[in-house]
Amino acid sequence: MMFSERMKRLLSYTPGEQPQDRKYLKLNTNENPYPPSPLIKSVLDRFDIERLRLYPDPQCGRLREKLSLRYGLSKNQVFVANGSDEALSFCFYAFFGSEKGKLLFPQITYSFFPVYCSFYNIAYDAVPLNDDFTIDVGKYVEKIGCGVILPNPNAPTGIGLPLEKLAYLLDNYPKERVVVIDEAYVDFGAESAVGLIHKYPNLAVVRTFSKSMGLAGLRLGFVLASETLVSALFTVKDSFNSYPVDTLSQMIGETALSDEAYYRAITKEIISVRKDFSAALLDLGWSVLPSSSNFIFTRKSGLSGEEIYSNLKKQGILVRYFDLEPIKQFVRITIGKKEDMQRVLKTIKEF
Amino acid sequence: MMFSERMKRLLSYTPGEQPQDRKYLKLNTNENPYPPSPLIKSVLDRFDIERLRLYPDPQCGRLREKLSLRYGLSKNQVFVANGSDEALSFCFYAFFGSEKGKLLFPQITYSFFPVYCSFYNIAYDAVPLNDDFTIDVGKYVEKIGCGVILPNPNAPTGIGLPLEKLAYLLDNYPKERVVVIDEAYVDFGAESAVGLIHKYPNLAVVRTFSKSMGLAGLRLGFVLASETLVSALFTVKDSFNSYPVDTLSQMIGETALSDEAYYRAITKEIISVRKDFSAALLDLGWSVLPSSSNFIFTRKSGLSGEEIYSNLKKQGILVRYFDLEPIKQFVRITIGKKEDMQRVLKTIKEF
Repeated sequence: MMFSERMKRLLSYTPGEQPQDRKYLKLNTNENPYPPSPLIKSVLDRFDIERLRLYPDPQCGRLREKLSLRYGLSKNQVFVANGSDEALSFCFYAFFGSEKGKLLFPQITYSFFPVYCSFYNIAYDAVPLNDDFTIDVGKYVEKIGCGVILPNPNAPTGIGLPLEKLAYLLDNYPKERVVVIDEAYVDFGAESAVGLIHKYPNLAVVRTFSKSMGLAGLRLGFVLASETLVSALFTVKDSFNSYPVDTLSQMIGETALSDEAYYRAITKEIISVRKDFSAALLDLGWSVLPSSSNFIFTRKSGLSGEEIYSNLKKQGILVRYFDLEPIKQFVRITIGKKEDMQRVLKTIKEF
Repeated sequence: MMFSERMKRLLSYTPGEQPQDRKYLKLNTNENPYPPSPLIKSVLDRFDIERLRLYPDPQCGRLREKLSLRYGLSKNQVFVANGSDEALSFCFYAFFGSEKGKLLFPQITYSFFPVYCSFYNIAYDAVPLNDDFTIDVGKYVEKIGCGVILPNPNAPTGIGLPLEKLAYLLDNYPKERVVVIDEAYVDFGAESAVGLIHKYPNLAVVRTFSKSMGLAGLRLGFVLASETLVSALFTVKDSFNSYPVDTLSQMIGETALSDEAYYRAITKEIISVRKDFSAALLDLGWSVLPSSSNFIFTRKSGLSGEEIYSNLKKQGILVRYFDLEPIKQFVRITIGKKEDMQRVLKTIKEF
């Protein structure tokens, strides 16, 4: 056996399919249907490739500066990583350890969380959702554990957690344990916790450029938190990879941040299409959970999630299902452009 | 205390300075003095930014295909990562664990190795070099441990390990323990172990686009090894970050690989400048270790490494020293263009 003991406990995350064989309507990985800001093209046009011979700024100084201005924080309250998955991994490393108890997260949530636990050998307690798939923060206050991680809105349900509930959790949670909120989809309608960072030094908010910024191909994520937490994330980065974010990605990220008007417009359109699509599904007798995301979680009685997935795939449409109780009956469908969702509706009617 | 127990044992790697304040002649991080292949500009010109809305190929299929052709391996013997530092980190995770003994590496070597050990809690044994700073593979065969990692050429000495010595190590080392060779600088004159991969399924060779390919700003590294070892690295990646390499980096890497003639020419020039620079230093009474890298390791009796570093920095030239026995007297100087090294010589003469 050539591998370390560690490898025996390791789980792998299964990302959504990225088929290279044929052309699908990809509604399976919550990518943005719109291209990123057109200003990015001019970054590439002007870019002097000689800059690539030098290492990138290991601190991502300018990008962090821009992010700090946008979110009303200091630069030392911003950490940047190679995608929010890397940012999350560093959070697990820095903040969570079984010596203080089990990590708490929802039973139905981003399926990478148990994988990070296996990577770093962190015991966890998957806390059941309410019957309506909402999160009961009271259960987290009761159990305490070594920390909490919640996506808001939650995945794959898409349901947002009201800010007052999060504040209740933070008010009643030990100050020396960290609460991480993964806000990958927050721009599509949930309430951000960024405004609470000043009050709670044990709160970390994880964000990504992949979804609302339309830059999944770039790999850029960040964490907003107190200087203490951010400083710990820098220590972890410097023990793993000194320069995780390349020069072009830093520059493209900066430019995307300067085009708020464009992003406001496409986000508004996605939310509008989501509302229409959800209403149309309800008309067809489907159940749809209330979404604050760029996807919806839906079911049709009499069909399993796998059946819906397979029927749609045959028609060239990719969605995602999870072979897991109690969400086996559901599929997660990314909100695309208006015409994309009309095609989905047309296909569904022909089932 | 908001951090995990893990954080208490964690060391940080100290990368070479990347000063943002004034303009230096940067000979401190072994960057290539030449820009990367001019073909890369046309990748950026032609690039459709809409591709960035989609996740990258998580398998880096085309890039791995190109690498496999270049090195005469199958695609399943190639793993790609976000820089060779990430590749190395994954190797430490997958292959090395204290349950099988201590990890062996040279006492003087890439200073990130003990940092990875702290990250994953791996005990290590730093094996002394010979008095001439060469590596004695016999010591590794005697001690065994849980695995071996060696840079070839070694850092920061720049000394290459002859292939026959590496073959001796592999012939006499347990087949179920892994030997990792970090070949970051191999293109500048050392003998690559890639040809041994067919014979030794426990050999992993780590490479980077940062040095000879002039793409430090891109963050692209890779591992060449048996399918068994590569498959384990994919498992680790999928438990850390499903998409560590962004779309543009994959495309730029592919293009760089197709311009062998350009890279052969600049590598030849760097080797030639290194030889002239080393000879000139010897003429000035400096000691220079025999280098197979794009840097030299040198000392001048009567001066500490820190003094040489400080004197050069005052004159706008950055080099690197290590506050560590037995190399305190040395500085590591990256080989730049001919005129860069003439400036260094002129400055040194004025000490």
